[in-house]
Amino acid sequence: MADRVESRPFDAAIIAVGSELLTPEKVDTNSLFITQVLNDLGVAVAFKAIVGDHRGELTSHVAHALRRHQVLILTGGLGPTDDDITRDVVAAHLGLSLHEDAEIIDAIERRFAARGWQMPAVNRRQAMVPRGATVLPNPNGTAPGLWLEHDGAVIALLPGPPREMKPMMAGEVRARLASRAGDTRLFRRLVRVSGKGESAVEEIVQPIYSRWLAQQPTIATTILAGLGQVELHLVLQSSDAPLAAATLALAVAQLTLALGQDVVSTDGAGIEAVVGDLLRARGWRVALAESCTGGLATSRLTDVPGSSDYVERGIVAYSNEAKVELLGVPASLIQAHGAVSEPVAAAMAEGIRDRARVNVGVGITGIAGPGGGSAEKPVGTVCIAVAGATTRVRTFQFPGGREMVKAMSANWAIDLLRRHLLE
Amino acid sequence: MADRVESRPFDAAIIAVGSELLTPEKVDTNSLFITQVLNDLGVAVAFKAIVGDHRGELTSHVAHALRRHQVLILTGGLGPTDDDITRDVVAAHLGLSLHEDAEIIDAIERRFAARGWQMPAVNRRQAMVPRGATVLPNPNGTAPGLWLEHDGAVIALLPGPPREMKPMMAGEVRARLASRAGDTRLFRRLVRVSGKGESAVEEIVQPIYSRWLAQQPTIATTILAGLGQVELHLVLQSSDAPLAAATLALAVAQLTLALGQDVVSTDGAGIEAVVGDLLRARGWRVALAESCTGGLATSRLTDVPGSSDYVERGIVAYSNEAKVELLGVPASLIQAHGAVSEPVAAAMAEGIRDRARVNVGVGITGIAGPGGGSAEKPVGTVCIAVAGATTRVRTFQFPGGREMVKAMSANWAIDLLRRHLLE
Repeated sequence: MADRVESRPFDAAIIAVGSELLTPEKVDTNSLFITQVLNDLGVAVAFKAIVGDHRGELTSHVAHALRRHQVLILTGGLGPTDDDITRDVVAAHLGLSLHEDAEIIDAIERRFAARGWQMPAVNRRQAMVPRGATVLPNPNGTAPGLWLEHDGAVIALLPGPPREMKPMMAGEVRARLASRAGDTRLFRRLVRVSGKGESAVEEIVQPIYSRWLAQQPTIATTILAGLGQVELHLVLQSSDAPLAAATLALAVAQLTLALGQDVVSTDGAGIEAVVGDLLRARGWRVALAESCTGGLATSRLTDVPGSSDYVERGIVAYSNEAKVELLGVPASLIQAHGAVSEPVAAAMAEGIRDRARVNVGVGITGIAGPGGGSAEKPVGTVCIAVAGATTRVRTFQFPGGREMVKAMSANWAIDLLRRHLLE
Repeated sequence: MADRVESRPFDAAIIAVGSELLTPEKVDTNSLFITQVLNDLGVAVAFKAIVGDHRGELTSHVAHALRRHQVLILTGGLGPTDDDITRDVVAAHLGLSLHEDAEIIDAIERRFAARGWQMPAVNRRQAMVPRGATVLPNPNGTAPGLWLEHDGAVIALLPGPPREMKPMMAGEVRARLASRAGDTRLFRRLVRVSGKGESAVEEIVQPIYSRWLAQQPTIATTILAGLGQVELHLVLQSSDAPLAAATLALAVAQLTLALGQDVVSTDGAGIEAVVGDLLRARGWRVALAESCTGGLATSRLTDVPGSSDYVERGIVAYSNEAKVELLGVPASLIQAHGAVSEPVAAAMAEGIRDRARVNVGVGITGIAGPGGGSAEKPVGTVCIAVAGATTRVRTFQFPGGREMVKAMSANWAIDLLRRHLLE
């Protein structure tokens, strides 16, 4: 082990095993959950590797990881078939013999018996345990996990299916790591922002979060931008939970002061749920009239459980006739201003508000593309109106292709509704 | 280099560089595109690694990859800041000195000048080129790529942003690899299936694709299951393009024969686009009446460019009053059978068909959960009707949470519409 790092840090390598994870179609997402659990314990992830069902390759990566890091989490390759090599490779690399564990055989046999089946012979393989390993029970599948301590390192072997891996990682593995990880923990807050682009948000918050880097405990900030939404992830390492919570609360308050109504939530809640809570608090109901978004705004609002309490209806009025007939938009208005115009958006919002007899109506009309644009109204032109006691309407020019225009429009419609409810 | 593999295969390692790729929020997707290009050339991917902006760690992974594989593709870490270490680490590992390339400086200066700006001093870093490296121009950003040949291996350094990385990988890097890769290429077909679960599809196609494994050229089959849809990926390696195309065409025909109308497309087209083509071919228009899907089915149909030609309207009738008022569903029908029932789904489909004066109407009513279920009609109960000249209605029992029930329902509604159009 020539390049063994002499004082390996207590940080982690994650290896996802499975040839299907090396195709152009599949991405490893198990490591995201594993990273979250590790980070929560203050354990950093040094690298992730994705390796196929190939003994030589996997052995080489296990050796490489253990030369440099004290924690190694493997996921996948614990199944019953010849392709499932993780157990064998790790045991062979560490020079540990395997023995069949009678309790595991029992558990697998019971699992099959509960379905009225006999355990296939191949499944015996899943009961092989390296000498000295601790078996991690798997209530959600046949493959138990394994926990090994070897030469100062800890190694966890977890199944690949997320519903089997996650409870094992968040349960047994987390508990065992916690007792070794020291008392430093990771604390997080997520602030959701809407109505501003990534760079505009960055410009406002950069002077704030740069100060956090100079203080103790330090807060690290990550800005992630989605379609029409920005997420600010605040992360702080500390061994003092009350201090960490107070420090983060102050930081969140500073952001909220600087960003004002652009802050959607400070507890991770999505904008659809926030709007739902605001509607509920007022005892209001909403109805939506959509054209270019094709129902996406209504669909997103109804992703929230219980939204049938406050979403009365949605109408996708693609054709001009539908706008006239279902929403009462005057045909003359469409003729005078065009279907994509502020007066038509306003008439759509007011029309559905009145016809559905709700407190607030939303109207969206625009050109999602790729066809239908003109010099005056290019693709991406979208008018959005919110009609409560009064009506407000705004025109946007969104970049990107059809799906991006739809997504940005739906997000802005929900956000304008949110702002209306805050007034 | 103790564990250098003596005859390294011409297969590839991919290393994505960037600390943000080691957070719980971000996943490397660049490697999917890179894998596709490599596989197309018949080059297999042996492993992928994701490494942070850490010199020691990255050096160790570069060394590890080059001991075992002849192709190494790195992406990310070519920017102008101190965090961007890929160029330095690779040059140092190979023992190559760096020199400033005047042409790159020129190109970056021109790029900034075109926006009326001066090149910041930090960007000089991006013009450093290891001795013997070939510069790969980057028309979409400031960081050029680099191509190195060293000790029998080829190494490509690509920028991290996908819009800069992709053209470089598909252009210069592909061309350079092609001249070394031999004439074996990868050929693919994608067959989309709807209306059957993964295991039901597997049961039907397994006897077919197992024969393909015994033939020459061999076809490898991967089955991927999404929400209500199954994808069959057929992949064949061959140096004979016409033979490959004919072999795959025969294989696709065998699948189509076995799966019948469950085959949505054999050219990769999505089900929304397939339905759009069928509507256009008939000169028909459709309207949708949705309850539990909240507009999702209409939104998905309108993801297709030009769908305003055949999607006349959609109505999200969440409340019973909306069902009566907007769709003409008799209140007595709702009272007699409940809002989630086959007669109501049929009345919704017929109501919107007649009121929108279109050829075919779709009605969806169900319990998306988590609330609203009963012993008789548990969460996940969904009735879907398609009304053309005649009306057909089916009841489903979907598993999973609210979003899964919505997604499965929308997919089945679109699929039942597709089957109606095929009749």
